[in-house]
Amino acid sequence: MTLFTSSLAISLQAKIITRAVAYEHEGVQLEGWLAYDDTVTTPRPGVLVVHEWWGLNDYVRHRAEQLAGLGYVAFALDMYGRGVLTRDPAEAGKLAGQFYGKPLMAARAQAGLEQLLATGLVNPGKVAAIGYCFGGTTSQALAYSGAPVLGIVSFHGNPLPAPEGAPNRAKILMLHGAADFFIKPEAIAQFTASLDAGGFDWQWINYAGAYHAFSNPDADKFGVKGVAYNAAADRRSWEHMRLFLRELFGE
Amino acid sequence: MTLFTSSLAISLQAKIITRAVAYEHEGVQLEGWLAYDDTVTTPRPGVLVVHEWWGLNDYVRHRAEQLAGLGYVAFALDMYGRGVLTRDPAEAGKLAGQFYGKPLMAARAQAGLEQLLATGLVNPGKVAAIGYCFGGTTSQALAYSGAPVLGIVSFHGNPLPAPEGAPNRAKILMLHGAADFFIKPEAIAQFTASLDAGGFDWQWINYAGAYHAFSNPDADKFGVKGVAYNAAADRRSWEHMRLFLRELFGE
Repeated sequence: MTLFTSSLAISLQAKIITRAVAYEHEGVQLEGWLAYDDTVTTPRPGVLVVHEWWGLNDYVRHRAEQLAGLGYVAFALDMYGRGVLTRDPAEAGKLAGQFYGKPLMAARAQAGLEQLLATGLVNPGKVAAIGYCFGGTTSQALAYSGAPVLGIVSFHGNPLPAPEGAPNRAKILMLHGAADFFIKPEAIAQFTASLDAGGFDWQWINYAGAYHAFSNPDADKFGVKGVAYNAAADRRSWEHMRLFLRELFGE
Repeated sequence: MTLFTSSLAISLQAKIITRAVAYEHEGVQLEGWLAYDDTVTTPRPGVLVVHEWWGLNDYVRHRAEQLAGLGYVAFALDMYGRGVLTRDPAEAGKLAGQFYGKPLMAARAQAGLEQLLATGLVNPGKVAAIGYCFGGTTSQALAYSGAPVLGIVSFHGNPLPAPEGAPNRAKILMLHGAADFFIKPEAIAQFTASLDAGGFDWQWINYAGAYHAFSNPDADKFGVKGVAYNAAADRRSWEHMRLFLRELFGE
């Protein structure tokens, strides 16, 4: 029944509503991107989407719209500030560097989550987060903060070990390019050990031949060695995410 | 469309036909188990199923029937010989030991594959193999032999490195219990390195907290430490297999 509903949602080409949502966190003006299917009248599962280190660009907006096409209410949050975007790796590293290892990472993501919940469109018991690269790591931090998400999906995100005693209610799905040399085997082992120690429900999927940022069709344009699009890994990771969300939301 | 067809196949409770199929390989009398949905009249994708080291028991017969329920023609082959079955790990180790590291492993599997193709029910361009534990390893050996399978799925099978120069047309999906201490990290690394060197398309999925034989509800009854059923990993691995088969068969 659920499968049929999903197919139908796609085939009817439901109208997707999108709009910018301005909000604030600790004095920083932020602007996220909301996407949902306007034919749905009852509260829907919600999916928070966290951008790559480049900021909230068209790529991540498109992901929110794809999620809306699946019948979810999607909110691409903003970590950096309204309009703060870059294509320069040094600048991106600086922007993302404000958050790594700091409580601000989860706190800023929670501010986005609150916006999603405040839309009134979402069933608050059915919320998940996904993220790409930096956003994948951020979604992990959000999980460990005990935020009310059933699960998180990290697409080519750096694995962030769970702090000791972190709440473990969010299920974790890690989607990883097996050829991604930015992420060392030791870091993966440390990560999974921390999740096991913390009693987390996690899955880790390796895609052969996929490099960092494998899901972004523009990845190669950034000219960073080891960052590349991989169509098979993109397609498969999206399908793996869909399965996971269906499990989380009981669909 | 495909999703809808799958739902329908389940909801109508199509009649599943099963029958024992006697055949021979190198003088050994074998008996496999064929399962298919009799409402299907055109050639269907075929799935070969390879049993655990216990032999062709009810568990693997049931898997063949589940595949038939998905609309595939499934053939649970016999590696050991008609009625050769055990519940004793020492005996199972001896039976499986006839095949590890020997050409007989792929050859015996190919004999099963020929039976599947000989049914006349199968589209010979759409065939895959799946296997459990010992059968997972066997399905890898079958892939490396260049047998006409589009892909193989190994459920908690020992990883078998690809021989240098092995044909790489079969895609490989490895479904692994992350807590399976029988399979060492070094063995996994050697395996994936061999696949990368051979240009294989592979995916590897780790399920947290799952031990060896995680998909077999009877696993705990065998009384082997480190062998245990895991309902979440069972359900998820089956869904991951379904996705993979749909990709292979263009559904």
